[in-house]
Amino acid sequence: MSARKRHPVAPRPERFLEAHANNAAERCCDFGIRYIRIRTDYQGIPRGAVLVADRVIPDYPHIARVFALAAGIRQSLSGPFQVEEKIDGYNVRIFRVADRCVAITRSGRICPFTTDRLPDLLDMTALERLFIEHPDLILCAEVAGPGNPYMDMASPRGGDDVALFVFDLLRQGQEQLVPLAQRDALLSHYGLPFPRHFGCFTVNELTEVLEIVRHLDAEGGEGIVLKATLDDRRVKYVCPSINVEDVATEAALELELPGEFYIHRVVRMVMALHELGQRDRIHTLGPALGKALVSGFDQALHDMERTHKISKVYRIRLRQEASIKALLDHIDQDSRTISVQELARERLGNHWELTFRKTFRRSTSKLETLLAGSPIFD
Amino acid sequence: MSARKRHPVAPRPERFLEAHANNAAERCCDFGIRYIRIRTDYQGIPRGAVLVADRVIPDYPHIARVFALAAGIRQSLSGPFQVEEKIDGYNVRIFRVADRCVAITRSGRICPFTTDRLPDLLDMTALERLFIEHPDLILCAEVAGPGNPYMDMASPRGGDDVALFVFDLLRQGQEQLVPLAQRDALLSHYGLPFPRHFGCFTVNELTEVLEIVRHLDAEGGEGIVLKATLDDRRVKYVCPSINVEDVATEAALELELPGEFYIHRVVRMVMALHELGQRDRIHTLGPALGKALVSGFDQALHDMERTHKISKVYRIRLRQEASIKALLDHIDQDSRTISVQELARERLGNHWELTFRKTFRRSTSKLETLLAGSPIFD
Repeated sequence: MSARKRHPVAPRPERFLEAHANNAAERCCDFGIRYIRIRTDYQGIPRGAVLVADRVIPDYPHIARVFALAAGIRQSLSGPFQVEEKIDGYNVRIFRVADRCVAITRSGRICPFTTDRLPDLLDMTALERLFIEHPDLILCAEVAGPGNPYMDMASPRGGDDVALFVFDLLRQGQEQLVPLAQRDALLSHYGLPFPRHFGCFTVNELTEVLEIVRHLDAEGGEGIVLKATLDDRRVKYVCPSINVEDVATEAALELELPGEFYIHRVVRMVMALHELGQRDRIHTLGPALGKALVSGFDQALHDMERTHKISKVYRIRLRQEASIKALLDHIDQDSRTISVQELARERLGNHWELTFRKTFRRSTSKLETLLAGSPIFD
Repeated sequence: MSARKRHPVAPRPERFLEAHANNAAERCCDFGIRYIRIRTDYQGIPRGAVLVADRVIPDYPHIARVFALAAGIRQSLSGPFQVEEKIDGYNVRIFRVADRCVAITRSGRICPFTTDRLPDLLDMTALERLFIEHPDLILCAEVAGPGNPYMDMASPRGGDDVALFVFDLLRQGQEQLVPLAQRDALLSHYGLPFPRHFGCFTVNELTEVLEIVRHLDAEGGEGIVLKATLDDRRVKYVCPSINVEDVATEAALELELPGEFYIHRVVRMVMALHELGQRDRIHTLGPALGKALVSGFDQALHDMERTHKISKVYRIRLRQEASIKALLDHIDQDSRTISVQELARERLGNHWELTFRKTFRRSTSKLETLLAGSPIFD
């Protein structure tokens, strides 16, 4: 399977209305901004593309994963490529519209959290200057760190709050990504934060690329993204140890997520250890992964026995009190199986500290059924 | 979900012809015996029912699993119930037709292995006498042990060959199981081997039932089947440790089996440990399960690197040389994704010892794709 070839030009605004008429798009209004987002791929317009103030914000393209790094480079990247750190967070696109900077999520909704926190994540003076000088630019960024409201993670790096890393640039009305050299010049000129760039390599420098992965893995990093220097082609590859972290983070949701979520991580980890020449680490990573898988569900079952639900508690910071409701509504609307409940809000310097609970209704209901002794045919 | 209520009377022979006309049944001829088997459930006739010599051999009903034992008993078994050991093997139905005893698999094919090995598994004189005196009886049995050609298992009990355990009786032309008291009288009268019967209990004797499970688990047993004494209702429940064994046995097939195969075993194990009051064992069983999951796939990947396939080797015994081809053809026909290859046959006393390889084509092809570095969108 290969990525859809991107057109240089994004779909015209009329096509969003057509998508809406065909139930593939949704009209939204958040922060006083009216926009149309594509809900499901529609005749060449991918999910997540947005029409706002008659401007088209293209989607951010999905990057394919390779399980074998050397072979993957040979198959997908013929020429030179840049290696960049892959950040484990959530994907946003940031742009300026109607005199304000907004961030939209991968699925094309305005993200109340990122939009609220932009002044903490970026130098707003530099950002304003960038958007005055390049009004059509879109920052493609990852927001990572334990203080984010979407992912339950205990990143070993990044403190207790969030950080933002710009990894690509797009332009309004265009589908093609800004070429890497131009992107780097803009990032540097406006002092924007970006993930580590490890340099440019060719297929003959695999030893160096494998060494970067070993180094990142030892640091607790997620992996790398490899971007062709001469065209839009790119692939991603993850470090072995992050798979244990992923399994640990989601072990409470074993009745919610597809089984492949966990098993594919075993496959990725074992293949990475073989390729990195670290097959002996199986004897420590195997038991660690099993401990994560089993202890995580044990804890979830223990919580279920006490609280009658499977849930996770998040503690995050926001700048505006009005963003609290906007964020909780956003999470609530985003999933038919997650309910959200505010537990506490507290003033903390210039921020509000919000504590809230996400209840995973599908897991809760499945586990209720099993605990009730219902007979299951499998 | 509850079991289909079984009719006292099995479907009439004409209905098998009707199912065949509607592509839900298959005409077969094995060992010179012509029969029709139901391939997919057809208007109340379940998969696995067979018409042979104008006799209807009903399917063996599926038994539902409970993840919570005490609650499951309360929900599914109102009155007294018998507790029997659940044997981890494959299910056959044995009956007499056209002057010979044959065994059919769950899916209604004549099983060349069991049919060949019947004289090693049962006292044939007693069996002949049983079928003369009760020509319509059908033995429902589990064949278990490492010397079986279908399951890759290293049962801690049962030596290196197979053993057979009769756990129920059916009658030709009837769907209802023979009542337990009558079954036990017949098993005992004809000296047929059966799984351990632990006695009769009520919902007020849960402590004793849990103690049976703890005892079986310590022995390496699979679990128990609970059968209502007064009607056809029954449920099954498995011991915690067997889940680690199951994961270990199938770890090479992580790209073949659904991810739920592995993850549901984590859920079952953790729930069983909670119910048995053995939550502290999570600290040993968790790492053991992870080691099995990861080391098993590591070994499969290592084999793939050497042999370019994911396969398992079986060594089994047969009485007749002609059964070798019949068995290999049977395995080949049974799955579109498994190929079988004879590696060696050797005379061993009264038996032929057959060594063969099963190649799992789906896993092999998926792993080939990943090793080739193909980009995967996930």
